[in-house]
Amino acid sequence: MTREPLSLFDTTLRDGQQTHGVDFSLEDKRRIAAALDELGLAYVEGGWPGANPTDSDFFDSAPQLDTATFTAFGMTKRAGRSAGNDEVLAAVLNANTPAVCLVGKTHDFHVETALGITLDENRQNIRESFAHLVAQGREALFDAEHFFDGYKANPDYALACLHEALEAGCRWVVLCDTNGGTLPEEIGRIVSEVIAAGVPGEKLGIHTHNDTENAVAGSLAAVDAGARQIQGTLNGLGERCGNANLTSLIPTLLLKEPYASRFDTGIPLEKLGDLTRISRMLDDILNRVPNRHAAYVGASAFTHKAGLHASAILKDPTTYEHIDPAVVGNARVVPMSNQAGQSNLRNRLEEAGIVVEKGDPRLQHILDDVKRREDQGYAYDSARGSFELVARRILGQLPEFFDVERYRVTVEKRRNARGELITVSEAVVVVQIGGERIISAADSFFAESEADQGPVHALSAALRRDLGRYQDYIDDMKLVDFKVRITNGGTEAVTRVLIDSEDGAGRRWSTVGVSPNIVDASFQALSDAVVWKLIRDGASA
Amino acid sequence: MTREPLSLFDTTLRDGQQTHGVDFSLEDKRRIAAALDELGLAYVEGGWPGANPTDSDFFDSAPQLDTATFTAFGMTKRAGRSAGNDEVLAAVLNANTPAVCLVGKTHDFHVETALGITLDENRQNIRESFAHLVAQGREALFDAEHFFDGYKANPDYALACLHEALEAGCRWVVLCDTNGGTLPEEIGRIVSEVIAAGVPGEKLGIHTHNDTENAVAGSLAAVDAGARQIQGTLNGLGERCGNANLTSLIPTLLLKEPYASRFDTGIPLEKLGDLTRISRMLDDILNRVPNRHAAYVGASAFTHKAGLHASAILKDPTTYEHIDPAVVGNARVVPMSNQAGQSNLRNRLEEAGIVVEKGDPRLQHILDDVKRREDQGYAYDSARGSFELVARRILGQLPEFFDVERYRVTVEKRRNARGELITVSEAVVVVQIGGERIISAADSFFAESEADQGPVHALSAALRRDLGRYQDYIDDMKLVDFKVRITNGGTEAVTRVLIDSEDGAGRRWSTVGVSPNIVDASFQALSDAVVWKLIRDGASA
Repeated sequence: MTREPLSLFDTTLRDGQQTHGVDFSLEDKRRIAAALDELGLAYVEGGWPGANPTDSDFFDSAPQLDTATFTAFGMTKRAGRSAGNDEVLAAVLNANTPAVCLVGKTHDFHVETALGITLDENRQNIRESFAHLVAQGREALFDAEHFFDGYKANPDYALACLHEALEAGCRWVVLCDTNGGTLPEEIGRIVSEVIAAGVPGEKLGIHTHNDTENAVAGSLAAVDAGARQIQGTLNGLGERCGNANLTSLIPTLLLKEPYASRFDTGIPLEKLGDLTRISRMLDDILNRVPNRHAAYVGASAFTHKAGLHASAILKDPTTYEHIDPAVVGNARVVPMSNQAGQSNLRNRLEEAGIVVEKGDPRLQHILDDVKRREDQGYAYDSARGSFELVARRILGQLPEFFDVERYRVTVEKRRNARGELITVSEAVVVVQIGGERIISAADSFFAESEADQGPVHALSAALRRDLGRYQDYIDDMKLVDFKVRITNGGTEAVTRVLIDSEDGAGRRWSTVGVSPNIVDASFQALSDAVVWKLIRDGASA
Repeated sequence: MTREPLSLFDTTLRDGQQTHGVDFSLEDKRRIAAALDELGLAYVEGGWPGANPTDSDFFDSAPQLDTATFTAFGMTKRAGRSAGNDEVLAAVLNANTPAVCLVGKTHDFHVETALGITLDENRQNIRESFAHLVAQGREALFDAEHFFDGYKANPDYALACLHEALEAGCRWVVLCDTNGGTLPEEIGRIVSEVIAAGVPGEKLGIHTHNDTENAVAGSLAAVDAGARQIQGTLNGLGERCGNANLTSLIPTLLLKEPYASRFDTGIPLEKLGDLTRISRMLDDILNRVPNRHAAYVGASAFTHKAGLHASAILKDPTTYEHIDPAVVGNARVVPMSNQAGQSNLRNRLEEAGIVVEKGDPRLQHILDDVKRREDQGYAYDSARGSFELVARRILGQLPEFFDVERYRVTVEKRRNARGELITVSEAVVVVQIGGERIISAADSFFAESEADQGPVHALSAALRRDLGRYQDYIDDMKLVDFKVRITNGGTEAVTRVLIDSEDGAGRRWSTVGVSPNIVDASFQALSDAVVWKLIRDGASA
């Protein structure tokens, strides 16, 4: 059966960048664009060339995309100059992307109030801007700003603006509910009317915002009514309450009827298995706590807390799950207090190479200890390396490789011999290894890059510089990332440090430390990282 | 005009309690029930009497509600005993609430697989349970579990179960999309069919879950199709991805058409102004970080980051706001960011008491400097205090209160006199104030709480302990929060530290520092915090 194409347009890197507190770096944009392309999105909108240095740099070194059409964003030309002489539009075109999406007005109130030009001038701006794009061989998209409010106020004018864009050669006209106030039922009705007024559904897109918590439903209502492009963002990033969440829409479109049988989004079903990972990667880049309750990909999306649900799930998972969590790369979680919690734990231990018999009472001890420590602020979902050590301690499988007698870290800001203000970190670590006492020191000049000038890196360098007879095991290991978060441990705020380490074999593992003192928390995580590596490489205590 | 009644049923204290990580205390339940009642909800479901000690205690000392009908939750009687002899049902009835809501099966698969009884036995359980409730003078509600999946599998049986409940005297039958997998369009269609099959809309409720991010839209679709009760929770709490979010639904029903003109929810319009406060109160009780992006009540719900939006908002707020934020007790925010225009900037400066003429060329210098510094990793959206200092520097309005000659911070882990391992932080700061050299030190023992044991707090204490002639100005200031993240400054990773400070007048301000060294970044933010306070309190350099 041939399925109709349904185009998915990602604007995480443009509208998603409008999220309060979100500020992508060049490297962030590259990573996200690569992930979107690999997932199979039809369009990746990279930003607004010329609007800020990061966006300009990103387009200057445009990513190589296999599937997605790389798209630049801009706005229709301003009144009183030609499309060729508008330097804002020129900067967008100079990015040389195959597709260009321009926002423009369709709401008479906005034309007159926000732009202060006549309705005819605005139509002319739309027509000439898109004619200019098309003449340059670009695929053109029109983001019809405030379309729904505009249509309700003056349907003829709003429709006329769409027709200007289409007649100038636009591939897509996208109806934007810019303020997010239009409800799904009304979106569906207006999309039907727009199609009845002569705009072909296969040229019609929808762009919603989540201000009434209906952005996903509004997108579906538009598709039900005949629109064939959805614009949205990963994790629903976006200004105010966010854009339509592609992370929710993609699995719905691929797994749920009538969409699954009817439409081809270009995303292969097997790619859905990457969705949870990609969603978490974005949060990781943004150093945001992932939303546990996110549809499909949240850590709690398949967590069954109610006793009645948990016991039914054991009989048949379809009793309380609308899809198989593995299809979206997520996992079922059954609380630790029952037997299903124990079988989850056994699976996780097995992944770490630790085999424990079913029914072993130590399984419950591990679950209790994990829960107690998570209440203190530890995060074992992220720090699998440290989780493994917690389990090994209770199972009596944790060798005592070394004992830390003391450490000291100093950070000093002072003038150097040339009178310049410099900051220097220095660390001293003293460990005992089988009766031998080893003192080891490092300072900022041991940093693996200019960025690693801080106390945690100095401490890491000192700890890894001389570990006596274990030195050979850890020579190839390095600290690749650390994240710090203030969290709650019991009633007091504590600092949680997550450290990512890597070794010469390309293995990457995460460890965690918690303390009222950031340096102490870091040292716990560093120490766990070293112990994990020694175990994994078969060192004997 | 007479409006139709639309009943709002809150299950925050029952289904909301199934949220991963949520565990209400007795006092929590009392506070939440009182807030729901004051807001004007029709029903407050308090929990399941007999299911756990907290729920039992809560019903033992039932709250006095003015508006809401207090409701106990339970399940239909089990097979093989009479309704009067089922001790689980008896515990529910013994709570003596005016209304009782019982969950029961309507999906043949669940009857046979999860319960392991015959379809007829299940119908009998429904009929006898509700007849028993009604005979005791209780208002009865039937939560028809898995109704939509059941209806799709066996519509006659699912409908027969509803009719059993209605014939036994149920006031409401509530169609539950228990697994959250049914999309709004399908919910609407099935609700229409149920009404066509003889279930009156004014006895029909809807209970959705957010597993596809459509719980709010599914509730609206059911109301559009004729249902007249919505069950949901505050802030969308609930198992897995949560229940339908009443915090989003209530303003939509009261402010948006066709609902506002057509329905009376019993919630007075002026009560909407409490909604943001109640939403935050719930997060506060749960010690959760409020969702900045929540519809209507999120801190970012009316935050206008895009430069084009911000400048239009200054002309007319309705250009980019679907409702007036004050109506739901929220507030507009126009943040500073690298996408902001000059009008946005002037607006922001005015909030800080700095008046700059329109067209002043220094406005562009400030924007350029903010952009340059944000590219290095600074974040002025969040750190308004530091932003103000950047602007003042360029405007020539930044006094030089003090000059930092040097500082040193040490964190040491060692054994104390009793042989216990302890971690101690110590800081020394040397500043010059008008020719005078001041050296000041502090250590962990200056910490304002047990949680503040780290180097940043020691540095903060040392800096604020002796600032010579400015000391009086900063005596009432303290560090209340700090956040650390690794971000990209140009091509290198750097550490960004955000610090929140507070003073005796209850003012709270945020400052930022960026450096490859976390301590150095912290010191910048601390120093900015002190300078901001000195300016705000009128100290002269």
